[in-house]
Amino acid sequence: MTERLVIVGGDAAGMSTAAQARRFRDAADLEIVVFERGHFTSYSACGIPYWVGGQVRERDHLIARTPEEHRARGIDVRLRSEVVELDISGGRVRSRDLASGVETWTGYDQLVVATGARPIRPRLPGIDAAGVHGVQTLDDGESLIATLTATTGRRAVVVGAGYIGVEMAEALIRRGFEVTIVHSGPEPMATLDPDMGALVRDALCGMGVTVIGNSEVTEIGTGADGRACTVVAAGTEYPADVVVLGIGVRPETSLARAAGLPIGDHGGLLTDAAMRVTGHENVWAGGDCVEVLDLVSGMHRHIALGTHANKHGQIIGANIGGGYGIFPGVVGTAVSSVCDLEVARTGLREKEARAAGLQYVTATIESTSRAGYLPDAPVMTVKMLAERITGRLLGVQIVGREGAGKRVDIAAVALTARMTVAQMTTLDLGYAPPFSPVWDPVLVAARKAVRAVEERG
Amino acid sequence: MTERLVIVGGDAAGMSTAAQARRFRDAADLEIVVFERGHFTSYSACGIPYWVGGQVRERDHLIARTPEEHRARGIDVRLRSEVVELDISGGRVRSRDLASGVETWTGYDQLVVATGARPIRPRLPGIDAAGVHGVQTLDDGESLIATLTATTGRRAVVVGAGYIGVEMAEALIRRGFEVTIVHSGPEPMATLDPDMGALVRDALCGMGVTVIGNSEVTEIGTGADGRACTVVAAGTEYPADVVVLGIGVRPETSLARAAGLPIGDHGGLLTDAAMRVTGHENVWAGGDCVEVLDLVSGMHRHIALGTHANKHGQIIGANIGGGYGIFPGVVGTAVSSVCDLEVARTGLREKEARAAGLQYVTATIESTSRAGYLPDAPVMTVKMLAERITGRLLGVQIVGREGAGKRVDIAAVALTARMTVAQMTTLDLGYAPPFSPVWDPVLVAARKAVRAVEERG
Repeated sequence: MTERLVIVGGDAAGMSTAAQARRFRDAADLEIVVFERGHFTSYSACGIPYWVGGQVRERDHLIARTPEEHRARGIDVRLRSEVVELDISGGRVRSRDLASGVETWTGYDQLVVATGARPIRPRLPGIDAAGVHGVQTLDDGESLIATLTATTGRRAVVVGAGYIGVEMAEALIRRGFEVTIVHSGPEPMATLDPDMGALVRDALCGMGVTVIGNSEVTEIGTGADGRACTVVAAGTEYPADVVVLGIGVRPETSLARAAGLPIGDHGGLLTDAAMRVTGHENVWAGGDCVEVLDLVSGMHRHIALGTHANKHGQIIGANIGGGYGIFPGVVGTAVSSVCDLEVARTGLREKEARAAGLQYVTATIESTSRAGYLPDAPVMTVKMLAERITGRLLGVQIVGREGAGKRVDIAAVALTARMTVAQMTTLDLGYAPPFSPVWDPVLVAARKAVRAVEERG
Repeated sequence: MTERLVIVGGDAAGMSTAAQARRFRDAADLEIVVFERGHFTSYSACGIPYWVGGQVRERDHLIARTPEEHRARGIDVRLRSEVVELDISGGRVRSRDLASGVETWTGYDQLVVATGARPIRPRLPGIDAAGVHGVQTLDDGESLIATLTATTGRRAVVVGAGYIGVEMAEALIRRGFEVTIVHSGPEPMATLDPDMGALVRDALCGMGVTVIGNSEVTEIGTGADGRACTVVAAGTEYPADVVVLGIGVRPETSLARAAGLPIGDHGGLLTDAAMRVTGHENVWAGGDCVEVLDLVSGMHRHIALGTHANKHGQIIGANIGGGYGIFPGVVGTAVSSVCDLEVARTGLREKEARAAGLQYVTATIESTSRAGYLPDAPVMTVKMLAERITGRLLGVQIVGREGAGKRVDIAAVALTARMTVAQMTTLDLGYAPPFSPVWDPVLVAARKAVRAVEERG
């Protein structure tokens, strides 16, 4: 008998689930229906800054797989079709065709909630004015590019200094704009400790970006034409020909919440390791709408990242397909770049360690990502957190140039393996002058962290 | 009472030992005497190709710390002073001042053997002719640069296609030479499996390098002036205005062997994890003259690499100083580059796995080191070996361009932690479009390896 799998949301997690389930079970065995309220499937939201910046020439290059390609594999993708209710006890979902307004109930044997995240959009005066842009969807990107092309002004204000904010700063620089970043924290990149964020601020300033910290935006000022023309923050007006919002996202779980599915403290759906929604045999969830286990702190957190969403989809698809996969959790790795600056983190920063009840020492070192005697060897700073007494690695933050960012993976694997900083000092990392000093900067940081653990006790 | 530490060899392992021991114990407590037969201390032999290639402008940039700097820390460095005998039962070494020929006995409480490695120099006709150069020491580099500067010819032949050979090929290209590499294996980079070595050959050919494999060199032909003018290999003569030998090295253990110290199957000294020579309470050894434990195969091997030598020195120095350090072993990581090509390996290649009695499956994938939609995303190939049945990671080989090589560190840490390829599929690696596709190539290889393990059983 044919089972029906219904997937709510057709981006990374949803479509990975569909594709993987289909590899295991053919259409006679498993019908797959995907409801997507937007126009696209399987696109790289992470690629939008590079499209806006001009490195990616066409929108369609960001689409990994079109609806037609999915349909050719026997996946019934329904675009512009929004699920408006999950009836868990009834085993069905209610969807609305956005063109006609017609609503339909569709029964399921297996349900996957992959509703993603929604951008944080504070209810401020002027927030909906023309010239104010989010960068969450391809439609957002298209609309922003239209504004950037049409405007003759050159002043751009980015609200938020997280990774979306700084990536958008680069895109706007590439398009010839003068960029001001306004953000509420003490330093940009609040995913880093402030001492490391300060290095990012210095680098941004060196690129000609104006960085305004400790400034909550209170209003978007509009002109006589109704278009945004200033950003008001902490009592100061910053002139703006275009405003980009990069404040972050929250799990989109309104449907799930209304249906009584379990929601965690960070607003995301709760699942077991197989990505099955807690307490529901045939309901699964993955991607930006779920919370995940942080393997370092043992606590849950919400991380919206395409790489996790794809993994979730693979795992859910395998499990529905009769294979087996689990998502053990994350260590909180993130890497981003602004022009030639590379910024990365994994594990816990100081605030997160404290919140998890962990006592720690820190070690910060400066080194280079190539042998120091090579010309222009790029400087990089590594900060390491290690647990007091045990010396277990708790986190690493990196700010540097070429070759710095992806070194965070060394620490990501070490965190997964619960290594101590002492164990890390003898890691057999790749060494050759174009790639590293004879002591890799991560090893130098580990050595200093060992001493810090010894001194603190 | 003052103890005396005698160190034989003043490069990476020896001088790291001296510096670290001095951090723990002052001159009143520990006298440190270093015998070095050459003119230099603490130099980067790995940097020689970049000096020859012109990226490093001066020889002295390759010297991390001069004899004077060491002496200022109370380390008695004796240059041009060669140890000619180790008297272990007598607790003393006999040294010869190379200028005067005068020999002296010096007693020790602690002895460190850091005699390094010697380049393989086959006894061939013409091998000692002018125009034939090794690249092991700073003197070698100086002599090669003099030849390259003086010669009007533009034809260079490199003998050997290991990492020294290919790095020298790049240096010679940078100096405007036409480069031919002659080597005895089926493919260049014998530290890779031949299928991956073939990718290196293709790339070298693409750079205009002529690569001649399966060709044992039998003679260096010399002209009427006595200078090298051809390399003869497998019956063919290759014209050469300069010949560079990059055939590899062997542990320099003649003194240790004569003194009855334990030597392993690969010709290196045997030590315990603290780098104490097996069976000798007060004799230590480190760097290119020792064998190390391979954590993947459980067997010993010889690896000449500055990064290990520095670690050994730190550990020996700490242990002599009253601190504590161990060198658990290596996983066999190496990375090198030729122009924009990046080549890396860690763990076991097929031949090594077989020699260790391990059954394995392989998975090879092609991906890119950035998101594929970014312009000119560099292609990279990853080959992974996993143990049959258990799925334990056994090795990774990478051939690619920018951003490819140092990804080997992910596998190096995973090997150290004895991860399975299934565990690797959910590693939380840094993702952003300028750094990686949404599935990092190492994860893609791990997924394919998981399937190979399942299929093979």
